[in-house]
Amino acid sequence: MKTLAFYFDFISPYAYLTWTQIGALADRHQHEVEPRPVLFAALLDANGQKGPAEIPRKRAYTFRDVARTADRLGVPLAPPASHPFNPLLALRVASADLPKDRKHALVDALFQATWAKGIDVTVAANVQRVTREVGLDGGQLVEWSATPEAKERVKKTTARALDEGAFGVPTMLAEGELFWGLDSLPNLERRLEGKGPIFRGRDDPWASIAPSATRRASRD
Amino acid sequence: MKTLAFYFDFISPYAYLTWTQIGALADRHQHEVEPRPVLFAALLDANGQKGPAEIPRKRAYTFRDVARTADRLGVPLAPPASHPFNPLLALRVASADLPKDRKHALVDALFQATWAKGIDVTVAANVQRVTREVGLDGGQLVEWSATPEAKERVKKTTARALDEGAFGVPTMLAEGELFWGLDSLPNLERRLEGKGPIFRGRDDPWASIAPSATRRASRD
Repeated sequence: MKTLAFYFDFISPYAYLTWTQIGALADRHQHEVEPRPVLFAALLDANGQKGPAEIPRKRAYTFRDVARTADRLGVPLAPPASHPFNPLLALRVASADLPKDRKHALVDALFQATWAKGIDVTVAANVQRVTREVGLDGGQLVEWSATPEAKERVKKTTARALDEGAFGVPTMLAEGELFWGLDSLPNLERRLEGKGPIFRGRDDPWASIAPSATRRASRD
Repeated sequence: MKTLAFYFDFISPYAYLTWTQIGALADRHQHEVEPRPVLFAALLDANGQKGPAEIPRKRAYTFRDVARTADRLGVPLAPPASHPFNPLLALRVASADLPKDRKHALVDALFQATWAKGIDVTVAANVQRVTREVGLDGGQLVEWSATPEAKERVKKTTARALDEGAFGVPTMLAEGELFWGLDSLPNLERRLEGKGPIFRGRDDPWASIAPSATRRASRD
């Protein structure tokens, strides 16, 4: 089985929507999804950009688009307890070493809690309960999440995502190429079918396109 | 016929890809596309955000995603003469008063020139030629594009897009609601079919979600 890496942060409703679709897509093409929790805010920092929730018109639009898309896909959705929120507790818990099926159940439960049940996953007691409901030792996981090892793990996975060229979540990595966002799934699926352009290991014919105009850098 | 407004800038390859799809979508639902040229850079300025071409990892990804998507949709695509470029000449020409079929042919020709033929539309002679090829008076249009009236028209349309809540291109406006980007077309189509959530004129249940964490503002 080949690996389909799934870089995600629970803070992103698009990561949630994509999570609900990516398993079936991977199954169709004999790939195995490997969830890799990263801190979206750190990707934004490293790329010098703002997140959708930090631009008022985009924030308003994003929630509507997410509601429309969840409705279209038939995916449960409920307003989150707060947003943006600090996802580190949930990310660290999700980065624990676990057998694959357990890891998937854990990631799924935390996504569902955040985006389908309105449960505040910044609260340790909530994360413990959600984790217990999928048969894991919630107390131990939450305790482990406060260790330097857990903190370092999310940092390392985030650094790895940046090394791969990521700038947002969700980012999928398959066949050595990045696919960003829910809307990249049709292109990802074609890539797994061997269709479409292949960029890995090739010179990118677009890389040499020069700018002929630049905008004054926007200021916060 | 109801109007489906299409706010666009020739600078955006996603606006081009969406343009190649939006006519058929509108036809299927008895809507008429009304192309509205806007300056994407002004939308970015007003919203305090960067464009994809201004974030190196995103720029590299965007060109690949566009190539994959064009291939998937069967849409012709060629690297542009330069990018980003100053789109004002083409936008102003496209904002001229013309009968609907002529306007569509003009917008289509300028999109094709930019994204399918690698023609530099910042050059007046090129814009004249492209315009002539669709049976319009290229010389007159290019001359008019330098008038205060032409400049004011693109400014006004851009201000209108901002008033409507736009923050990027392409943005479609139908049934009083905004749809942003190529990936919004399935949701737009459902909206025209009367499916999915309706936000127009309703209280938005997500509008009151409060942040519980904020990221330090990123600096350029």
